[in-house]
Amino acid sequence: MILHVALFRWQPDVTDEDVERLAVALEAMAAGIPEIRGYRCGANLRLRPSPADFAVVALVDDEAGLSAYLDAPSHAQVYADHLTAMVADRQASQITVPDGITL
Amino acid sequence: MILHVALFRWQPDVTDEDVERLAVALEAMAAGIPEIRGYRCGANLRLRPSPADFAVVALVDDEAGLSAYLDAPSHAQVYADHLTAMVADRQASQITVPDGITL
Repeated sequence: MILHVALFRWQPDVTDEDVERLAVALEAMAAGIPEIRGYRCGANLRLRPSPADFAVVALVDDEAGLSAYLDAPSHAQVYADHLTAMVADRQASQITVPDGITL
Repeated sequence: MILHVALFRWQPDVTDEDVERLAVALEAMAAGIPEIRGYRCGANLRLRPSPADFAVVALVDDEAGLSAYLDAPSHAQVYADHLTAMVADRQASQITVPDGITL
């Protein structure tokens, strides 16, 4: 399986309410994409120093599943409604993980 | 529980062999820290564009578990033996996740 990990840094004017609305929209999006086998997102708890503000971790079966997720119209809609105005920086990786993970 | 997510970008002279040795060292470290409830790491598969080269995802019970992991002598040793010479940039987040996740 493939674990997709993304970290976001926000524009300075992003509020806690913006982040809460984003998280709700992302969870709703993930629930509507069956190829996503597990999905977690949230604001950085800031237990250690780092510029990152928000993280997303998503589990998919394979590259086709990743494309079904990242290219979904509902994903583009979350960008249009929330992320495009919020993001100052984004980095992501996909790593191979064994079966049996539950996110 | 807390999911700790880190993304790394390497110095330009880092080789695939360096990354393989790092992954082996990180997995051995994680296996020796009982507070780590799940641990996955690996090179970015680069299925989508991003500057990130490597990802780590670790599951712990709470902030004490995170400290047991990040402050472990074996973690510092992986930095001394591998990461310090390899890292050009690192970002991380910790997010709250519900019980029941298995990494």
